[in-house]
Amino acid sequence: MKVGVVLSGCGVYDGAEIHEATLVLYFLDRAGANIICMAPDMEQMHVVDHRTGNPTGEKRSVLVEAARIARGEIRDMASVTAGDIDALIFPGGYGAAKNLCDFAVKGVNCSVKPEVERLIKEMHAAGKPQGFICIAPVLAAKVLGSYGPRLTIGNDEATAQAIMAMGAAHLTAAVDEIVVCNKNKIVTTPAYMLGPTISHVAKGIEKLVAEILRLAQG
Amino acid sequence: MKVGVVLSGCGVYDGAEIHEATLVLYFLDRAGANIICMAPDMEQMHVVDHRTGNPTGEKRSVLVEAARIARGEIRDMASVTAGDIDALIFPGGYGAAKNLCDFAVKGVNCSVKPEVERLIKEMHAAGKPQGFICIAPVLAAKVLGSYGPRLTIGNDEATAQAIMAMGAAHLTAAVDEIVVCNKNKIVTTPAYMLGPTISHVAKGIEKLVAEILRLAQG
Repeated sequence: MKVGVVLSGCGVYDGAEIHEATLVLYFLDRAGANIICMAPDMEQMHVVDHRTGNPTGEKRSVLVEAARIARGEIRDMASVTAGDIDALIFPGGYGAAKNLCDFAVKGVNCSVKPEVERLIKEMHAAGKPQGFICIAPVLAAKVLGSYGPRLTIGNDEATAQAIMAMGAAHLTAAVDEIVVCNKNKIVTTPAYMLGPTISHVAKGIEKLVAEILRLAQG
Repeated sequence: MKVGVVLSGCGVYDGAEIHEATLVLYFLDRAGANIICMAPDMEQMHVVDHRTGNPTGEKRSVLVEAARIARGEIRDMASVTAGDIDALIFPGGYGAAKNLCDFAVKGVNCSVKPEVERLIKEMHAAGKPQGFICIAPVLAAKVLGSYGPRLTIGNDEATAQAIMAMGAAHLTAAVDEIVVCNKNKIVTTPAYMLGPTISHVAKGIEKLVAEILRLAQG
């Protein structure tokens, strides 16, 4: 079983949420899956000082920073096709809404990076499962909204409204819960959209990984 | 139970190993411990492109980068005393040997950052437990070598020799094992000194966290 993990940088405020990404890798590896980490080769929207919360003016590459989480073993997402993997998981963090798409800036009218949109569509067309964690379900709503996927981002009213405006159904869920859309083979969990701490977040992510592997086995 | 976690940046090649650090936070939080993340306020020895393995020439702060793993909740290590915490854990990564001390450059003749040396000595004097993961046991060997602590970094011959030259005893251990030095209340596990993957590393870290909490409860 080969599972792709899409990283959007390294750090909750400008990249991939580190705890969510690491827990995905942990639960996948523990289950015996082969992991293919990937990220788009592009500049981050910005760099945030995670101590102060303020942008720093630095420039960093999404792919190079994501390699920190992947311990160097990472592929340019543009080189990965649905034929290479059996399932795909998107951890959250603002990077999913600032780098993989611009939802953090444009909301419902966001656009998704071409290679991200392509792979999500390929996986969907191939009937292969995809997991979206935290804020990442906005990617599924934007790219696959016309298929009416059932998603959760927890209970944030504004984000839920945006997801519905993009054509998806939103279901409220707790941090230790997942929402499974069997029709579209999409699994979502709120993670740090709710928190409050890493062990709570881990419960939902552990369930998401198990369900993704179950769906991938057919 | 308040447990300090010392981060040395964010990324295996120039900072704290992200998987090891995140797993420490996960197992501590799951056990109900209160976590105090900390890092020294200093510049990193260097910045490494984790995709290529080459230095980039950038300058980054250990404290600011470590805040990525801590989701912004981090203290300057200089402000933390043994009175603030019941136990202390050092994840590995090259940052432990490049930033917290200069073992990566100077080996046995390394020096340890003053605030790191101070807190390790304070914790030891107070009889409070300390955990050292991966390459971080070189800190315990250098600072507390005169007390003859029993440590492991796995089975790397050169590093084991250096640890013994600094006054500690080295015991070979597997990645899913810990070495407990009851006399000095020090617990060590090889983690990514051996690997090979995150779920293997997690087994030893899970045991280390459990033993640290057991020792802290007296």
